Parts: sequence; structure tokens; C-alpha cells
Amino acid sequence: MNMANITKKVSWSSRGDDSARGEATPLLNGTEEVRYTRQPSGGLFHISRLSTVDLEEEITSEEQDSVRTRPNMIPHNEKLLSLKYESLDYDNIENQLFLEEERRMSHMGFRCLEISRWVICGLIGFLTGLIACFIDIVVEKLAGIKYIVVKQNIEKFTEVGGLSISLILWAVLNSSLVMVGAIIVAFFEPIAAGSGIPQIKCYLNGVKIPRVVRLKTLMVKVFGVICSVAGGLAVGKEGPMIHSGAVVAAGVSQGRSTSLKKDFKIFEYFRRDTEKRDFVSAGAAAGVSAAFGAPVGGVLFSLEEGASFWNQMLTWRIFFASMISTFTLNFFLSIYNNKTGDLSNPGLINFGRFDSDSVAYNLYEIPLFIIMGAIGGLLGALFNFLNYWLTIFRIRYVHRPCLQVIEAMLVAAVTATVSFTMIYFSNDCQPLGQDQTKDDYPLQLFCADGEYNSMATAFFNTPERSVRSLFHNPPGSYNPLTLGLFTLTYFFLACWTYGLTVSAGVFIPSLLIGAAWGRLFGILLSYFTSGSSQIWADPGKYALIGAAAQLGGIVRMTLSLTVIMVEATGNVTFGLPIMLVLMTAKIVGDYFAEGLYDIHIKLQSVPFLHYEAPATSHWLTAREVMSSPVTCFNKVEKVGTIVNTLSNTSTNHNGFPVVIQIPDSDEPGMVCGLILRSQLIVLLKHKVFVERARTRLSQRKLQLKDFRDAYPRFPPIQSIHVSQDERECMMDLSEFMNPTPYTVPQETSLPRVFKLFRALGLRHLLVVDSENRVVGLVTRKDLARYHMGKHGLEELQLAQT
Amino acid sequence: MNMANITKKVSWSSRGDDSARGEATPLLNGTEEVRYTRQPSGGLFHISRLSTVDLEEEITSEEQDSVRTRPNMIPHNEKLLSLKYESLDYDNIENQLFLEEERRMSHMGFRCLEISRWVICGLIGFLTGLIACFIDIVVEKLAGIKYIVVKQNIEKFTEVGGLSISLILWAVLNSSLVMVGAIIVAFFEPIAAGSGIPQIKCYLNGVKIPRVVRLKTLMVKVFGVICSVAGGLAVGKEGPMIHSGAVVAAGVSQGRSTSLKKDFKIFEYFRRDTEKRDFVSAGAAAGVSAAFGAPVGGVLFSLEEGASFWNQMLTWRIFFASMISTFTLNFFLSIYNNKTGDLSNPGLINFGRFDSDSVAYNLYEIPLFIIMGAIGGLLGALFNFLNYWLTIFRIRYVHRPCLQVIEAMLVAAVTATVSFTMIYFSNDCQPLGQDQTKDDYPLQLFCADGEYNSMATAFFNTPERSVRSLFHNPPGSYNPLTLGLFTLTYFFLACWTYGLTVSAGVFIPSLLIGAAWGRLFGILLSYFTSGSSQIWADPGKYALIGAAAQLGGIVRMTLSLTVIMVEATGNVTFGLPIMLVLMTAKIVGDYFAEGLYDIHIKLQSVPFLHYEAPATSHWLTAREVMSSPVTCFNKVEKVGTIVNTLSNTSTNHNGFPVVIQIPDSDEPGMVCGLILRSQLIVLLKHKVFVERARTRLSQRKLQLKDFRDAYPRFPPIQSIHVSQDERECMMDLSEFMNPTPYTVPQETSLPRVFKLFRALGLRHLLVVDSENRVVGLVTRKDLARYHMGKHGLEELQLAQT
Repeated sequence: MNMANITKKVSWSSRGDDSARGEATPLLNGTEEVRYTRQPSGGLFHISRLSTVDLEEEITSEEQDSVRTRPNMIPHNEKLLSLKYESLDYDNIENQLFLEEERRMSHMGFRCLEISRWVICGLIGFLTGLIACFIDIVVEKLAGIKYIVVKQNIEKFTEVGGLSISLILWAVLNSSLVMVGAIIVAFFEPIAAGSGIPQIKCYLNGVKIPRVVRLKTLMVKVFGVICSVAGGLAVGKEGPMIHSGAVVAAGVSQGRSTSLKKDFKIFEYFRRDTEKRDFVSAGAAAGVSAAFGAPVGGVLFSLEEGASFWNQMLTWRIFFASMISTFTLNFFLSIYNNKTGDLSNPGLINFGRFDSDSVAYNLYEIPLFIIMGAIGGLLGALFNFLNYWLTIFRIRYVHRPCLQVIEAMLVAAVTATVSFTMIYFSNDCQPLGQDQTKDDYPLQLFCADGEYNSMATAFFNTPERSVRSLFHNPPGSYNPLTLGLFTLTYFFLACWTYGLTVSAGVFIPSLLIGAAWGRLFGILLSYFTSGSSQIWADPGKYALIGAAAQLGGIVRMTLSLTVIMVEATGNVTFGLPIMLVLMTAKIVGDYFAEGLYDIHIKLQSVPFLHYEAPATSHWLTAREVMSSPVTCFNKVEKVGTIVNTLSNTSTNHNGFPVVIQIPDSDEPGMVCGLILRSQLIVLLKHKVFVERARTRLSQRKLQLKDFRDAYPRFPPIQSIHVSQDERECMMDLSEFMNPTPYTVPQETSLPRVFKLFRALGLRHLLVVDSENRVVGLVTRKDLARYHMGKHGLEELQLAQT
Repeated sequence: MNMANITKKVSWSSRGDDSARGEATPLLNGTEEVRYTRQPSGGLFHISRLSTVDLEEEITSEEQDSVRTRPNMIPHNEKLLSLKYESLDYDNIENQLFLEEERRMSHMGFRCLEISRWVICGLIGFLTGLIACFIDIVVEKLAGIKYIVVKQNIEKFTEVGGLSISLILWAVLNSSLVMVGAIIVAFFEPIAAGSGIPQIKCYLNGVKIPRVVRLKTLMVKVFGVICSVAGGLAVGKEGPMIHSGAVVAAGVSQGRSTSLKKDFKIFEYFRRDTEKRDFVSAGAAAGVSAAFGAPVGGVLFSLEEGASFWNQMLTWRIFFASMISTFTLNFFLSIYNNKTGDLSNPGLINFGRFDSDSVAYNLYEIPLFIIMGAIGGLLGALFNFLNYWLTIFRIRYVHRPCLQVIEAMLVAAVTATVSFTMIYFSNDCQPLGQDQTKDDYPLQLFCADGEYNSMATAFFNTPERSVRSLFHNPPGSYNPLTLGLFTLTYFFLACWTYGLTVSAGVFIPSLLIGAAWGRLFGILLSYFTSGSSQIWADPGKYALIGAAAQLGGIVRMTLSLTVIMVEATGNVTFGLPIMLVLMTAKIVGDYFAEGLYDIHIKLQSVPFLHYEAPATSHWLTAREVMSSPVTCFNKVEKVGTIVNTLSNTSTNHNGFPVVIQIPDSDEPGMVCGLILRSQLIVLLKHKVFVERARTRLSQRKLQLKDFRDAYPRFPPIQSIHVSQDERECMMDLSEFMNPTPYTVPQETSLPRVFKLFRALGLRHLLVVDSENRVVGLVTRKDLARYHMGKHGLEELQLAQT
């Protein structure tokens, strides 16, 4: 057996040496996630927005401040795996209560549930569409007002001199809009920063990211994105739509708002992780659908990121939510545009239609497309690399909210200044009067009458409009120098912007950069081949391919991105080239740097599970992967033991096997169930103790409803008072535990464990010996630790933060 | 606990009373599929084509004839579940050989494998595209020749009288073409009959349908479909493309042809069920993609039918195969049409482009669409119901190949006669000269000069062209009576045709019926609302919606069908209406009858697993579902015992748990592995006996290659000679068994067992007690038995045929 990659053995031992784990008694070692263990010295706090917020729930505000101000000493935290993220419980807990409820339910009852699911998905789609509509209209209004003010100002000063006043006006307008956006994000809900796609990816992957699907997050996200887009940053409003859709889904499906303390008493059946995650998938799909007018792309996005097990009915509901979302957006926008009922213009972004007659490609252009894909991959890798270092810098030095707001304002001012300078020194004048530019705010500046400044068109518009112009403006609308300079400046601006404490997406800037250099590529091509063929004449299709290449190079999504691009262009003919380009961009890009979202996920040390275990990990078995020994409970356990175990801050396990101990034996017991911390907390809260039940016969039997009411914010153990008398009572767990947890033998290979874990969306997987005794427990972190590095299989270390 | 649906208990006992099972020794009862057990009296042989062929492999031709001629006494075999279908082994057998091979393999090795997978998918796409291209061109040529001959003949006799000669010519031409198609199917490869979609559905579901992915099947399918389409039957060439793609995939991925006895010694790693099924998914997707120009629809079709566990890389490869397939078809057709390099015309069928400007819909039309969906559902249910009785009739009386050929010829002749009569008595004349009709073979008949007979256009063209005309011909091209009569006749013709012993699809006829009544609906609508609005003026969109409704009502596919229709029309705007229509059609249709494919699958008694266990089955546990007791082997087992067990024709189990027997105990042993019949056969063939190994030190160690070489046609046990001496030897199974089979405790609920089984694509799932001793085995049939009937949970009976 070739066990060359023996590095594992070394890092294995290092796993036990963190102080918190060391303190634990041997029996209390190695179950699931540590929830809020804090390491007082040199921890990894405040890795960025995403990692601070989840502490807030249980840390007082003083502590929080001290946490916020502590500088981070270890920037390379992508080599670590945080223990603080919990998994979602996608697997149903089929305990007696659940089974009894299911058995009581009639066929009609199940049908009603199914209908509710459809209604919820319809609502999700409808609300997501409405939000998209709201964002779109408000951004357009705000941007319109801003552009008119600035344009009048510029035009006034172009004639009389003193353009610097215009610049200042522009910069101040932008900065103040961005300031508002940055303040609400930095001070009220830091998780709302960025596009939200990494967070939703993690959620759909099965990681519980705290606060990510709350109402407050949604509000901050929506207003934040309006401010940052209207503030002229190099950002798009599409990424945040996906996050918004997910929040809507999580809210609607639960039939209550914990933040608003309002319970509608509906959809109570759906108050568990399994159902919630399914609905969040639908919400994310509805978001994509609203953003790009791509319902199928939305479904594929959700499946690509989230699906464990493909379920036809679920997929169909996701598709329904997507369709309703596009339709709603379309319908209300058509009313807004006074073309009521014209539903042929889906999506927030509209690439304009590529008609197959006007723009076709030929076989011999495919190598060119592939070259463009490679360029996109290279530029994407560069973008990601720069952004990576910038993020590290931000983690180290820009971690106070006020600093973050100042940085955002600085970027806004610089963006305005750079744009202004570029426009000022550009002399690319184009004749006015083409259809495409009629609502593009053409700026005359120093051009002759009847002409407009083409650089200004690229900079002065919302990025969506600029992309559309690059795709569809007739040949000759842009001169190569303009495009080159624009690409260069916008590249760095977009790179600087992503990761700011504002709510903003990276899709549109990527498309814009790509469209610009793609069009440049097309123009150069037509120079070199001038006169030889008609087909090179249209640089618009190269702009499209360039956009796909650049976006692919940055985000590295493949399948769903192809479909999104195809749907957004409304032309299936370009499917194959777009696919080839995205593949090339991914292959080339992956050679140099990871995808942008993956970088940010890794920097948060999230235990993200990919589709498959690393290829060369067959030599690892469950025995080596699992955590052991495991804290177990007996079927009837003493309350004191349970409280002590749950209170032990150094371990904070979340799942406990329930065993039958063989009398007079020191060997581990035989598995007969699994119980979760959250269940125990509810049991303790309701004081379901055996002695009590005997004395008070009238005591209400605990129902599933009690667990659902407590979901998802189960109180911490500290808030539950258990008297000394009660500690001596016993608790009968048999009714509440999951009596049939999944188990694997110790010899099972890692890929096999991984497959079972991933396919069923598990949180805890028990490892048993040949006599069915618990010997270990596999959780998400145990699996996520292994990944393919440059030198074969590598193992990440676990960190307490 | 409410256990109202106690019918189960009754049917449970009935399970043991079939004679074959009763004869078995208790220890040998109840493992997986019985492979070729024959019950001499009153069996269910010759249920239809699909069920006879899989016996051929092991039954001599005399027996086969006697089987073929035996009339079938039990027509309602949809209430049974055949034991003769095996499952595919989607779960990897991670035995020592496999693990050692994986461990030896370097990172580079895995990368090479990955690249081979991509190459294979590219090849699958390319070859599928080529086949589609071949079918398309040959059909067009043949149909062209036939039409010209008939047309000249009709035109000659229209003037001089004696049209009946034309009729005879037409009928004879059609019948002889159909005869050729029917003969090759009925006599050479009956599995090639029909569209092949039900068979591929079953295969992707994990059921091994014998002979379905063989080269011979492909040849018969391709030539069969050419004959039946050119023969003027009411059939399409699209369904068979899906089957063709699947066969190509199964062939290419194995790097050899068992039929041609040619082994290219490549892709040996992929010679197992897991990999093969993945490639077949890609092939089916490539087939859909070539047929409808719908690469995304193809991917969704494969996933909807086949996917257990969504794997991003696999999906991406499937998409690649789809893309290449559309592209290849497109490229070669563009060469054939002298428009080399024009790649904007994907797919065999081309619905023509619905431009959003010309055809839009409005909000108030949506209720109308839903009504059309309901009509489609009703008509679809009627179609399926009629076809169901027809199939039962065929099973009973039309089971000899020659009868089948005669029936096919009869249908061809009747189709020609009916068409001719309809054209003859029609007086719907339309002016010539519209663009749409220039290559539609317009027939003048009794119309004035410069006009053509519109009924003739509908009947005389290939169905694809007729659909296109119905979608796109300008308002007024058809008169309502023509459309009504056409719908009526074509409905019954298509219904009669589906299930004939010819290779043919049902997609296009369904679309045609729907387009006809849809257009009629649109015309009537514009009569009633004449002058009120411009929007009602175009009946083309109603034809599209009608086509979707009818197709949805017949086949009941939802998600993939929506995407296929959207891609084929090239317009995402109609996504929501098509989706609503398909949903309505499905809901209405399901109320009356099942989908056509499901009916045919049920009539074959295939153990088909749906996505989820029946909703009300939580009260069933693994203990009640499993088969027991189980035949087990010891780790080191006597050869004689193994041979005897394998030879026992009354049981014919395919999987055997390997146990460690506790000495001096009668209790079942503890599970330590699982071994398959096919593995044992290979072991016996190579005589891997312990005593032998000791005497002959030079004996070659058995490798995975030996198993791969034998795959997939493992010899029957009867062909392996084991001498009396050898029977006394021992066999050590520990190296070959799967040491970590999945197990569940006895209390596991049916939905939980089902989920595990389905998500991982298992074939055998062991049920163990709390001490890890085997108490039962769950196989596909144990799960497929339970289904939701009209009166709650019902249980199908198992049949030996």
C-alpha cells in the first residue's frame, strides 16, 4: 500500500493540542461543533464581518467590542477550519413523537402539506420579484436624479470652465450615498456585506451561518445595495438579490418572524432544518431568476450549490418559485414602464436579445473563443489574487466599523475621480442619434455638437446599461483606446470594491470588464482581418464571450453560469461557445488561484463540503477520520449528568449517541439512538423528568410543537435553571432520541463516509465496531479537513474560532 | 397509533405462497432477484416485447417458442411486481482489490481518469449527433422520394380520374416500408420497439433491462425508426434518439463491443455499473439534446429520470455531451443544407422561432392557458386509457412476431387510407405562395390553380413539418373544420400506433394533436372576440400551448418538458405559461389515468423506485419490509455450499451477506461483508480455492481486471464445472467481499430506508439487530412493492416472471 502522503499523521497529533480540547475529560472529547468557546489569547476573532456576528448572540456587547478591536494575528486562516460553524440537520429526526405525528396524519393531511409547500414557493417567488422590482425602480430613480444633477453641472462648467467643482459635486454625492450604505451595513448588520453568495453557498451546503437569513439582514441588504449602486461604485445589484430571495424564503416558510416577535401560527410543520433548507434553495433560485431573468439558471444554481439528493417534487417547486419571481418582476416593471402586460423583458439585468440571424458564429471562431476563455481565466485569477491580499489586509487593519465606512467612502470618491479624469482626458467622440443611446445619458463634454463622449457612456451609466451598450452598440461605437483604458481602470476599481463593507455584487462589474476587453479583442480582430470576411465585423459577440470569460474566471461557476448567460442573452445558439469559454476560464483560472467565492469562504474557515471526497483519500478510513472518544448518554440518564455535559464550555458538543451500557462492563455501549443538544435543552426547559411525571399525573406530554416553537433559536444551557433536587432526577430519552441514526463500520473508506454524509445531508454519523458499539463520531469538520493541495492530500487544522 | 391501512398484513402472508419460494429451505429464502426461474403453469410470460427478450439469454430457442405462443391469462399485471429484473449496482464494491487499486493510483492517475471521462462524453455527444443526423437525412430523402412519387401519381389521376390507384400506391408504399421496420424489430430485437423512453427511464432508475443497451438494439432502432417515419405512421423520430444516445454511451464507455467480440483495451476502469450508468445518463441527455435542440432540457431529463445523488462534475459532463451532440448535428446538417457553419438551427425538430415581439401573451390569457392545460390533461388521460386497453389486448392476442408485423402493416395501410379520404373530402383550399409552404409539398388536388389543399398539408407532410406549419402559418391558413377533423382522426391513429412492434416515438404525434386543437381553440377564440383586441389574432401561440398541454397530458413529464419546450421554441417568455399548462395537464390527467410511460412500465411489472416512499408509510419499518431469513456465507466458505446455493434455481439470490458465526451458537452471525453472485461466479471460474493456492504457489492473484473482463455478461453457474474434489475446498471471500455494506437497524422506518436506498443507488441493504447480526435484507422489490393507491397504501404482489 502506497501511503506516501503521510503528512496526515503529523497534523493528526496537532489536533489534540489546542488548550480547550485538552482540558476536556477524555469521555467528553470529540463530538460536533463547539459553539461559542472563546480562547482568550491570540484567537482568530474578527476574521471579517461574517465571523464576528455569529458571536453576538451569546456574547454581551462589552465583550463584543473587545473582540472587535482585537487585531488579528494570523492572516492565513484559510489553512484552518473553524469549529464555530454548526451544521444544519438535513436528516429528519425520526423519533417517536415524529413517527406518531406522521402516523396520525391522513393521506389528505399530506396533500395539504404539499399544497402549502407550493403556496409558500409561490409566495417566495412573488415577494422576491417584488423586492427586485423595488430595488430596480429605486436605483433607477436615484441614479437618474444624480445623473441629471451632475450632468447639468458638468455641462454648465464645460462651457464656463471650473470643472473641478463638478468633480467635487459628483464625488460628494457618491460618497454620501455610499456612506449611508456602509453605515447601515457596518453598524447594524455586518453579515449583509458583499454579494451574499458565499454565505448562501455555505447555507445551502449545510452550514448554519448565524443571522444570515434574518429579516434585519434583508432590510440592510436591500437598502445597502440601493445605496452602493446609486453611489456609483463598481458593483451590481444582482448578487444581493440571491441573498434577498433566500431570506424571504426562510421567513415566509416559517410562518413567523422571530425578530418582530410575530407568529402567524401557520406552516408550523416546516419549522425544522430540512424543510427550511429546501425553501431557502427555492428562494436563492428565485433570486437568480429575478436578477438575470433566468428561471432555469436559478434552479441549476440552487442545485449546483445546495442539492444533496435530487428530488423531483422539490426541484419542480424551486422552478415554480423561479418562474413566479421572473413573472412578478416582469409584470410590475411593465406597469412601471407603462407597457402593462408586456412580459417579454425578464430579469433585472437585460443583456438585450442576441438574434441568431444578426450574430452567428462559425466553427473557426471556436479556437478564438477558447483563447478568450484563457485570457478570462488569467485575468480572473489576477483579480482573485489581488482581492485575496486586499481581504487579508482588511482583516488585519480595517476591522473597526468606522474605518470600514471611511474606506467605502474613499473608494466611492476615488471611483468618481478616476471616472471623471478618464472622461476629461478622453477624446473619443461619437455621433449622437443612435437608438441604443437614447436613455443612456449621453454627455457632450468637449465633443462637437451632435456628438457625445463615448468614455463617458461607459463610466457614467449604471453598469448594466454599459454592458448592454458594449454588447449591442454597432461596430465603431467605441474606439480601442477608450476600451483599453476603461478595462484597466475598471478592473482595479472593481477589485478594490469587492469586499468593502457595503452590500454589493461582483457579477456585473465582472461582465463589464469582460465585455470591454472582449469588444476590444473583437475590434482588433477586425483590424487584422479587415476586408477578409463579414463575420468579424461585429465586435458585440466578442463582448459577450469576453464577459462570460471574465465572469467565469472570477467566480468559476460553470453549469449554472452557462445557463444563466444563455437565458439572459435569450439565445441558445451561443450555448456551446459560452460553455467552452467558461470551462477554459475555469481550468486556466484554477491553475493559479481559486474562485472568488471560494477564497472568501476559505478565509472564513467555513467547513464547506465539496461533492466528493478528494480522489486519493481511499486509504483513509472512518477510524482515522472520526473524533473519539464520544460523549454518550444512557437511555435513562441523570439530569445532573446532562446539565454538566451541556454546560461544559470546553467541548460544547451538539450530538450525543444514546447507548445501552452492558452491565458491569467498561466497554462502550451499544448504539440505540442519537439525541441533539437542542432537544435536550427543550427537555430540560420543560422539565421532562421521570420522577416529576410520576408525581404529577396531569403533566402535559411534550409534543413536537414544543420543539418547533423553540426552533431555530434554542436558549443556551446557562439560561435554564435546574435546581439541586432536579439534578438528582432522571430523564427518559427514548421517546425523543432518533432511534435509527446512520452508522458505518470503522473500516469504511473516507470517500464512502463522505458520500453517505453528503448525500443524506447528515450532521452526525456514528462509527461503530463489529458489535455495534460506538467508537467514534464523524461530523462535517472531520470530513472538510481533507482537501487536495498542491502536494497531494492535505489536512486543515481545526481552530476554536 | 392509527394503523388503519392494515391490508398490508393480509397481502404479506400471500407473499410466501408462490410455489418456488415455498420449496426453498428456510435458510435460502428471500434475497435479491430471481433471475430466470420459470414457473411451468399459468405464468406471466410474454407480457410484451420487453418481457420476452430477457429470457432469451438462458432459454433455448424451442423453449422460447413455446413461451411465445402461450396465451397470457392475467392481463392486469400492473398489480404485480416481476422478480426477474435485476438492479444495477450503483454502489461501489469497495473490496480489498478495489481499495488497493485506488491506493496505488496517483493523483495524476485520477486526473487521467477524469480526462477520459470527458473524452468519452465528447465522443458520446459526437456519435449521438451523427446518428441523429443520419436518421434525419435518410428519413428526409426517403420521405421526399415517396412524396414525389405519390404526388405525381395523385396529380395525374386528379385530372383523368381513378384516384383509387393513387390510394393503393400510397398504402402499399407505406405498408412495405413499415413492414421492413416491423420485421427487423419483431424478429431480431423486440426490445427496440416503441420509443425506448420507458426502458431508458427504468435503466436510469437502476433497473437492469436486458439487452437494452446493446449494439444490435441500436442498429434495429435506427433502421426501424427510419422505416416507420418514412412509412407515414403517426410517429416521431425523437423518442428513439434518446434510446440511441443511451446505447452509444453504454458502448463507447466500455471500450469494447461484446456483440462484435472486439475489445479495444481502453476505458477498462469504467467497466462497472456505477460508471456505466453515469455514462448512459450522458447518452440519454445527448439524445434529447439532438432530438429537440435542447441541451439543458437533456440534462434535466437525465437528472429527473436518473439522478440519485447530484454530482456537479457528472452533471457538467452530461451537459458537455448534450452540447456536443446538438453542435455536431447542427454542423453536419448545415453542411448537408449547403449552409456550412451556420449553427443556429439546433435539434432534429425545429419548432421555428417564436419571437417575443410578434407573439406575446398577456396576463388575462393565463386562465385560458390553464383551461387548455385541463383539456390537454383530459385528452391525454383518454389517450392513455385507450392505449392501455389496446396494450392489454396486444399482450393477450398479438404476441407472435408475424401477427405483430401484420398489425403494423395494417395500421400503415389504414393511416394512408384515412389520410387519403380526409384529403379527398376536404375542400379547404388556401392560396399558394406563402413562404412557409415552399418545401411542404403542397398538393393542388381539386383546388383552383394557385391554391393548395390545406388538409393535405397537415396529413401529407412529415409530422415535424406539420407542427411547424401549425405554429407559424399566418392566421387563416387552416379552416376550423379541417383542424377539428384532423385532430379527431390523428388522435385515434396515434393512439393505435403507439405500442406497435415498430421503433417509434410518441412526442411528435402528441405535439401535432395538441397543436391542431390548440390552433382550433385560438381560431374559435378570435371568432368570439372578433375585433375586440389585436392579441387574439394569432392562433399560433395557442397551437404552441395546445401542443404542450397534449404532450404533458400524455407523458406527464414536467420539469424537463418545460425546459425542452422553451429551448425548442427558443423563447423564454413562454416559460411560465408552458409550465402552468404542463402542471394543469399533469394534475388533471393524473386524476384519471397514469402517464403513458408509467403505464407501460407498470405493465412490464418493473420494480421502479420513485423519488420518495409513499407519504403514509411511516408506520412500516425495515423489519416488516425486509426479506428474511437471509442466505449468508462465512468468511471462509466451503466451495460445495457456494455452488449449491448458486445453483438453487428456486431462489437465485444475487447478494449474500458474509458473516462471522459465533462458535457453538445458532444465532445469526455478525455482518462483516457482502458478496455478489457475479463475484462468486468469477471466483469459481478462476478456481480461487484456498487449498489450491497452497499447493500451487505460482497461482496468479485474482485482480479487478478479471471481474471487469467478465462484466457485464457473467456466465451462469451451470456453465462452470466444479469437480467433486474441488467442492471440498474452501474459498476465502474476505478479499473480494465488500467489507462495509450499508446497514440499518430493524426499527428504521420505510421512508428512511427508502431514502438511503435511493440516494445511494443501492442494490442490497442489510437489516441488522442491535448486536449487528443480519436479520434481513432489503432489495429494490421490497421497496417498490409499496405504492399509494386510491385507498391508501397498497402492496403489489411479487411474481416469479
